[in-house]
Amino acid sequence: MRIGVMGGGQLGRMMALAGYPLNMQLRFFDPSADATSGQLAELINASYDDLEALERFIDGLDAVTYEFENVPAQTAQFLEESIKVFPSSAALAVAQDRLVEKSFFQDLGFETPRFVRVDDRDELEHGLSNLSFPAVLKTRREGYDGKGQAVIKTPDDIDAVWMEHGGEGLILEAFVPFNRELSIIAVRGQDGSVRAYPLVENEHRDGILARTIAPAPGLTEELQEKAQACIAAALNELEYVGVMAIELFEVDGRLLVNEMAPRVHNSGHWTIEGAETSQFENHLRAVAGLPLGSTECHGYATMLNLIGSVPDPNDVLVTDGLHLHLYGKEPRPGRKLGHVTICAPDAATLELRLGSFISTLH
Amino acid sequence: MRIGVMGGGQLGRMMALAGYPLNMQLRFFDPSADATSGQLAELINASYDDLEALERFIDGLDAVTYEFENVPAQTAQFLEESIKVFPSSAALAVAQDRLVEKSFFQDLGFETPRFVRVDDRDELEHGLSNLSFPAVLKTRREGYDGKGQAVIKTPDDIDAVWMEHGGEGLILEAFVPFNRELSIIAVRGQDGSVRAYPLVENEHRDGILARTIAPAPGLTEELQEKAQACIAAALNELEYVGVMAIELFEVDGRLLVNEMAPRVHNSGHWTIEGAETSQFENHLRAVAGLPLGSTECHGYATMLNLIGSVPDPNDVLVTDGLHLHLYGKEPRPGRKLGHVTICAPDAATLELRLGSFISTLH
Repeated sequence: MRIGVMGGGQLGRMMALAGYPLNMQLRFFDPSADATSGQLAELINASYDDLEALERFIDGLDAVTYEFENVPAQTAQFLEESIKVFPSSAALAVAQDRLVEKSFFQDLGFETPRFVRVDDRDELEHGLSNLSFPAVLKTRREGYDGKGQAVIKTPDDIDAVWMEHGGEGLILEAFVPFNRELSIIAVRGQDGSVRAYPLVENEHRDGILARTIAPAPGLTEELQEKAQACIAAALNELEYVGVMAIELFEVDGRLLVNEMAPRVHNSGHWTIEGAETSQFENHLRAVAGLPLGSTECHGYATMLNLIGSVPDPNDVLVTDGLHLHLYGKEPRPGRKLGHVTICAPDAATLELRLGSFISTLH
Repeated sequence: MRIGVMGGGQLGRMMALAGYPLNMQLRFFDPSADATSGQLAELINASYDDLEALERFIDGLDAVTYEFENVPAQTAQFLEESIKVFPSSAALAVAQDRLVEKSFFQDLGFETPRFVRVDDRDELEHGLSNLSFPAVLKTRREGYDGKGQAVIKTPDDIDAVWMEHGGEGLILEAFVPFNRELSIIAVRGQDGSVRAYPLVENEHRDGILARTIAPAPGLTEELQEKAQACIAAALNELEYVGVMAIELFEVDGRLLVNEMAPRVHNSGHWTIEGAETSQFENHLRAVAGLPLGSTECHGYATMLNLIGSVPDPNDVLVTDGLHLHLYGKEPRPGRKLGHVTICAPDAATLELRLGSFISTLH
């Protein structure tokens, strides 16, 4: 089985590692010559609109998938004319536009933060009078890790925010005073079967995911069922094949959909060691048309991203149950260079191991 | 960290997969051009006595290890002159000669099957009169997976066995009426620390490992301690760095050392999913001078080798808790092409899943 992957970052790298035991050879396509997946699999290095390179990319492949959601829609459509692409370009299109995405979930009957479309300054003023302060102005497209977002706390912020971020193609969202951020990851197979991982709790710092706790502390069956119903509805509506993630806000027991990712997700890295089948393997199984794997947890896990710099493995690896994942990327401020997942059979042991890890960092 | 590996079979392949998350790049050396590790890492393809190729192999490496124990001693010594080699050529030499190996364990105070050196037919006759029938005649060197062995059941077998296997460099061993075959795997770090996995039970078919059950059913603390004492003594005596396996016979509660493998071992493949840290990662951690990882088990596991042919992944992957590992090798009768590990939180669930897997094979 030969599978092509659009994008060649750490998500692709971990996908390749999950693919080799299933005798799946992955081939990556990335505009960046030093895309990290190229360290362990074939990498075609070209721009997403280079049709000749795309033809070369799909030559001999059985299917194509993504590890990066901002692949241009035309590229995805072009690929779909020649080869099976999972998830489809239609699913990708929903995820690429925050306005379409939020409307999609509302139409399915799920709550999202309130939002209005903003294409000029008048619409911003009008939106703010509807949503009240604070509110968040975002680009509809291409934002990730908190980029392209600005909080408007008071009317005094409007001028400055509009000066920096103003223009067409924006969305204004009500700021949600959430109790915590959660996410759910599920996979849908080509036969329509769906398997979901437990809800996890996420902590962001400067807009970047810093830590995931799996399962989310105090997770009730009711909350899990709500989230599962939401992601299953989205997967089925889109006739989706592969792994999807949905980020949610928990507000007094309610779940509000923040956004979806049409790919494997940073908040699912813990599944490599913490679940019976990792999100990476399940994604590949779906794309290859194979039966899906169990999403059951082994005990408890915490995932911490290594951002900007990497600690000394000699210090880090003394903690039992700790798994180090380095992505082979050059250090740069704010860049995700790796992660650690700490596993334990119970929450108390996890806390101890986490303390041990944190103490080794200083 | 760049690590060289002598040999490029499935053991190397799984080592490479364990190395990437630690940002370790492996480079393989194998006389066979289609050595399977070459599918996911650099492969230097040359004969073990090609000094020029060996020089090229070690260029830029931090250390060298093995995934194949029959690397010529001269090759290992040549490498040791230029680069750190773990385990040392001295450890390799012990494992390469069944006579030296059994004497080594006896000298450490551990029981082995009784044995005599055989270099001619007289010594065979004399040995048989000491050991009685049945006995096993083996080559001292280079045998694996039951190759180069013959059972002598009665005096009538002597002529035929000597005709086929006779010559210099043999060992005659008493046939041990064992209750079962066990093995223990442990790892020793550069700081001398040792961590052992639980004893496992092995079932061979036609001299090839067919199935491993981890931990060994009915494993007592006493038996585990005996086996751990044995492997720790061997590791310490050899100032060994890396993973070692010892195959043992259990005879009415006694443990007899059958042989050692100075490398990761087929009976430790279950550790990929069934233990906190796999044998492959622990071997690399040792070779790289990093702290060793926890060898604790997650529940119960059974590993079954896929020999000669590979079942359809569509059938195999319906069983929950089952992990498929294909080695990317061409099918050939008697060839190890992959394995499955079935994991479960308890022995009863494992039995059910094993039944489910076996029923999908037909």
